[in-house]
Amino acid sequence: MTDVVPLTDPADPRLADYTALTDVALRRRREPAEGLFMAEGEKVIRRALHAGYPMRSMLLTPRWAETMRDVVDSATAPVYLVDPELAERLTGYHVHRGALASMGRLPLPEPGELLAGARRLAVLEAVNDHTNVGAVFRCAAALGMDAVLLSPDCADPLYRRSVKVSMGAVFSLPYARLTHWPRGLAEVREAGFRLFALTPDAAARDIRDAVRESAGSRTALLLGAEGDGLTPRALAAADDRVRIPMSHGIDSLNVAAAAAVAFYALTT
Amino acid sequence: MTDVVPLTDPADPRLADYTALTDVALRRRREPAEGLFMAEGEKVIRRALHAGYPMRSMLLTPRWAETMRDVVDSATAPVYLVDPELAERLTGYHVHRGALASMGRLPLPEPGELLAGARRLAVLEAVNDHTNVGAVFRCAAALGMDAVLLSPDCADPLYRRSVKVSMGAVFSLPYARLTHWPRGLAEVREAGFRLFALTPDAAARDIRDAVRESAGSRTALLLGAEGDGLTPRALAAADDRVRIPMSHGIDSLNVAAAAAVAFYALTT
Repeated sequence: MTDVVPLTDPADPRLADYTALTDVALRRRREPAEGLFMAEGEKVIRRALHAGYPMRSMLLTPRWAETMRDVVDSATAPVYLVDPELAERLTGYHVHRGALASMGRLPLPEPGELLAGARRLAVLEAVNDHTNVGAVFRCAAALGMDAVLLSPDCADPLYRRSVKVSMGAVFSLPYARLTHWPRGLAEVREAGFRLFALTPDAAARDIRDAVRESAGSRTALLLGAEGDGLTPRALAAADDRVRIPMSHGIDSLNVAAAAAVAFYALTT
Repeated sequence: MTDVVPLTDPADPRLADYTALTDVALRRRREPAEGLFMAEGEKVIRRALHAGYPMRSMLLTPRWAETMRDVVDSATAPVYLVDPELAERLTGYHVHRGALASMGRLPLPEPGELLAGARRLAVLEAVNDHTNVGAVFRCAAALGMDAVLLSPDCADPLYRRSVKVSMGAVFSLPYARLTHWPRGLAEVREAGFRLFALTPDAAARDIRDAVRESAGSRTALLLGAEGDGLTPRALAAADDRVRIPMSHGIDSLNVAAAAAVAFYALTT
């Protein structure tokens, strides 16, 4: 149990975790470096706690202090009460969900650990848009993938926007980051995974045929960023290139829809 | 062939189609009432023309007049040349694609016409977000659905944002609007379609089982808006309620991802 501490000075050092949340470039550097991430809104805060992330502090506007009474009561970290204007001044935006928590990061598992336990894996190359990372995690978790591997240049799944779009799936689906790219992909294949690269390329195999043939084996699906798609190096590292059959002259789906269809195809 | 007419006065009545494009409420009323819609950017304009929509006029900034020379040369509608500042002042936003066309709408087909020709149908209830409408059209076209039926309160597929998100799929996939809801759904079933309602409800049937059982029959998939989902009346009008199996405690996908998976399941 912790006291709720009303604060009124935006320069109070206890509020430092919450400053300039809209400055993406700054937060992108700062959050991993300082070992923190932001959970926004009641649902996400509860999910982060449930997943075992330690709370550094929480920032509430008065109307949320009551709704989140049980969270406050069980918190061991400080809880700060601020009015909505101060919250906006600090963070740079209107905090319409009225509750923010600064959470501590946990060490990521090693890729090898995930490879040992998973049957179906999503592997993301250079997905550097936070919304897309969040959307892919939500689909991967919902559709029964077991884990996610990220290339070194993928966006941070714990960035505020990724967390929100994922609906908290970034907390429930284990993930790791490969250090070497695309060399790390060899490790995936050596662990016994059949590595499929998803591409809109019409010369690739129909994903349905590829999945049928590999029934029973461990599979990893390699996905690239919207627009650029997978690099030639990543494509070359895969066992097979697969595509989702397209109609009506449409040449591609957006990355979240393509991922959803491919995950469904793999897990069905 | 038409002349390119330089214009400099934002109050010029020839520019009336292009005013206040960011005022969603206004454009929502105005565009259907005046029988027009906006095509934005070279690709979308070319696709709208290719789909047979008549051009009312086109607005270009100087650097696009050259790129779109062939479109200008074959146009019978007036083409206006304006500087980027005037374009922004008129429309209310920075027209970064430098080309806008006011296109004339075509009469929508009757639902009965679509029902006669389609084997696989998407039916949308109250999807009133333009982005979601566009995303669902893109997925439906890409994944081989034949047509879309809209409830009376669905957002306009020809609204600028829907067109853009659909990547032009709103031009290639035929659609119609039902006048009575949910009464119009009886017409779908009478035309021989098996009507599946997609829901996250755990009590619904696994979509894989439902699809397997109905192999060979004409199928219609009923989709609701994000958040609210389908109304009880729409659910009651369906032959069967189906769900996409979910894992990791995630309870739903966003509407575009759910639609993509369901369309894929239906067409596989």
